[in-house]
Amino acid sequence: MKNITLIGSGNVATHLGLSLINKGYKIKQVWSKEQKNADLLAKKVNSESINNLNLIKDADLYIVAVKDDVLESVIKHVDINNIVHTSASKGIEIFKKKFKNYGVLYPLQTFNKEIDLDFSEIPICIEANNDLFERKLLTLGNTLSNKAIIMNSEQRKQLHIGAVFACNFTTEMFSIAYTILTKSNIDFKLLLPLINQTVKKIKTNKPSDFQTGPAKRKDQKIIDDHINQISNNQQKEIYKLISDSIIKNYD
Amino acid sequence: MKNITLIGSGNVATHLGLSLINKGYKIKQVWSKEQKNADLLAKKVNSESINNLNLIKDADLYIVAVKDDVLESVIKHVDINNIVHTSASKGIEIFKKKFKNYGVLYPLQTFNKEIDLDFSEIPICIEANNDLFERKLLTLGNTLSNKAIIMNSEQRKQLHIGAVFACNFTTEMFSIAYTILTKSNIDFKLLLPLINQTVKKIKTNKPSDFQTGPAKRKDQKIIDDHINQISNNQQKEIYKLISDSIIKNYD
Repeated sequence: MKNITLIGSGNVATHLGLSLINKGYKIKQVWSKEQKNADLLAKKVNSESINNLNLIKDADLYIVAVKDDVLESVIKHVDINNIVHTSASKGIEIFKKKFKNYGVLYPLQTFNKEIDLDFSEIPICIEANNDLFERKLLTLGNTLSNKAIIMNSEQRKQLHIGAVFACNFTTEMFSIAYTILTKSNIDFKLLLPLINQTVKKIKTNKPSDFQTGPAKRKDQKIIDDHINQISNNQQKEIYKLISDSIIKNYD
Repeated sequence: MKNITLIGSGNVATHLGLSLINKGYKIKQVWSKEQKNADLLAKKVNSESINNLNLIKDADLYIVAVKDDVLESVIKHVDINNIVHTSASKGIEIFKKKFKNYGVLYPLQTFNKEIDLDFSEIPICIEANNDLFERKLLTLGNTLSNKAIIMNSEQRKQLHIGAVFACNFTTEMFSIAYTILTKSNIDFKLLLPLINQTVKKIKTNKPSDFQTGPAKRKDQKIIDDHINQISNNQQKEIYKLISDSIIKNYD
């Protein structure tokens, strides 16, 4: 699987493409619906660019890294083999019937085109419809990352939900803290040592083992006092609901 | 202010006491309601232990580090000067009328007796009822930490609310992710690179600037799919409410 074609030109395709050529793979073609996006990524990975799926040439592997809502319509238009998608939420079964070797190669990370990523630290979740193709994908995964693992579609979905809580929702908690502090002319950076300490602890412990704060202590007086002091209604609701969740966890 | 008496023997008193003697301060006495707790900390900081507030001797500074709900009853029983408490939620005004020099020395961190902390990185919020005492407390704060700052009671309360969101509530998000992954036999450690990346970003950016995920993209199909797949009702509610909050932020 040395010649790889990228179907898609977004964040995931870009980071995968750059990592693949770094590891000695060749990107045969880059497809995007928009020719200029295909051109942009093709230039970065020293490849040919196309915006018509009928122009796809033979390759050893096709990586479809497009938005979930267009994934099925894109794969309808290709008549190729050895195909994977990179989606957390879509199952392997969307390839069924049409393809011989198919699977999933899902890198668990939030991608941003501008930020360089160390792919070696990114878990890559592999799934395939047969053992031989699975072994091939795992070899590829192990070349890109030291955390390639086999995972079925159901687990991948649960992992995605977990990632939403652990990444998107924590970011929203940081964002609310930022809003509250800024309103009172307090530098958000003051919280960084506390945040670092929190994240340091989860590397070795179960998160619930080191919870602290008013809800953990069931300190209803402070909880009520905080709720009264939060002016934004949605933030109030979030404070109540998560405090309630913490209180129940330590019953 | 070289001779300091600790009123309290919990996490905050312990970490403060250890840091103070490391910086050359002398702990004159340690008070705790429970003699054995006073003994335990007194031994660590090479001090005298008492469990009777009437036995308090002269000191340059008295640090009252007790639980919020007993703070007022403890200070009612002491007739001393140069007194501070270490609480986020209690205002400076609880000392009013009775004391000449009083203030607050609030270290912003989650404390745990067993875990060693680098106090130099912990923000210390200082408040005092007069300039001279404020300067003295700031000198003490700057000896313990390179992040000592002046902050009034109102700001300190808001900072505490921000800390609950940024620390306790993120821990709850990690805890929910842990529960979801463990139920599907997925190692929670898989999320660590993603979490590290998330925390790395907030050091340089406004948290809302790098939000990603289904709610940010307003991908209602994935959101609904996730909500359907979460079996725990409270987790479902949290998923809905925080997604809704993210969606509104990016309107």
